[in-house]
Amino acid sequence: MTTHAATAIRPTKGEETRAQILAAAVDQASFGGFESLTIGTLAEKTGMSKSGLFAHFGSKLDLQIAALDESARQFTAAVFMPALKAPRGVRRLRALIDHWITWPQRASLPGGCPIDAASREYQHQPGPMRDAIVDRQRQLDGALSKAVELAVETGELARSTDTRQFAFEFLAIILVFYRSEMVLGADESRKRARTAFEHLVERFSR
Amino acid sequence: MTTHAATAIRPTKGEETRAQILAAAVDQASFGGFESLTIGTLAEKTGMSKSGLFAHFGSKLDLQIAALDESARQFTAAVFMPALKAPRGVRRLRALIDHWITWPQRASLPGGCPIDAASREYQHQPGPMRDAIVDRQRQLDGALSKAVELAVETGELARSTDTRQFAFEFLAIILVFYRSEMVLGADESRKRARTAFEHLVERFSR
Repeated sequence: MTTHAATAIRPTKGEETRAQILAAAVDQASFGGFESLTIGTLAEKTGMSKSGLFAHFGSKLDLQIAALDESARQFTAAVFMPALKAPRGVRRLRALIDHWITWPQRASLPGGCPIDAASREYQHQPGPMRDAIVDRQRQLDGALSKAVELAVETGELARSTDTRQFAFEFLAIILVFYRSEMVLGADESRKRARTAFEHLVERFSR
Repeated sequence: MTTHAATAIRPTKGEETRAQILAAAVDQASFGGFESLTIGTLAEKTGMSKSGLFAHFGSKLDLQIAALDESARQFTAAVFMPALKAPRGVRRLRALIDHWITWPQRASLPGGCPIDAASREYQHQPGPMRDAIVDRQRQLDGALSKAVELAVETGELARSTDTRQFAFEFLAIILVFYRSEMVLGADESRKRARTAFEHLVERFSR
């Protein structure tokens, strides 16, 4: 079992511990927000000592930024990567919306999307966390706009498409889905989100 | 100055104090969420004693629910009431969207919309706060759907309009505006929100 190859790819004990801490941090942030991420709360949640945690993350901010990056990594793995299996164009955009609205559930984040939580939390609080969130949202908007451009290239969306406007309204559908789920229930929200998406595509395909 | 009429409408000392506490609570919730509303933090913020606060709000939950209702009152005063000055129909819906995206600023809530904060915070946390939020969002959705129905009655929107779908997508525009403001800036976000709104109206007027 301990072949050379297996040894080479196996994470070190330190990497494993770090990954466990980050998984607990993302789970905590998804429920209680990133301000609830302190070395103290994480020590309680993981059963590790505070000094053990400090060895991995020197400060609350280090831990928060690492948890944000881990959230983004999980998001990419659950939403963008599987959507690449769909052919480029509208079918990939449709896969994106389907994966996006279901990802917190599939990533075992019963507290909902942690990036959504972080956005609301730091929107009006200037500082390094807000800067980090804006930076990652720009990357996300870029990746989404790129997927829209591909649908223009396939000819499914019109050449005149304002891809940033499309991405803006695409994101609107995701956000209202998250907000409406608790009022209308998941089934009706999903149906309405899909209806909105198909109309968005129709409008830009003319 | 102390005529009978003036005395009759002047709030009592107790009512005034309660209003001051609630104003501080809404401000605090808009930044730090409703979980940050404790008798302790409010005592610090208002300079009142904990026992003085307890006299007005018997528990953290009482205080949270009262702050949520005060947020809803401020929202109605800043968004729905002024929109009533616009004639019923699409012009009123347009006034609603304009007032809605600017209301946290106009209500001196630099921490953003507290109801938006509450929704994200309790979405996945069953309990009395979540129930209270869902209840108020249902009322809000009802008021919004009613405004959409009036635009059907004036003939500006088609008789076949799914008013709940319209309201769903209207809310989507508000939410993406709040989220995009920090990435794109207020001007571009407002422009894109208005574009989305005009296309929504166009789609349902056919």
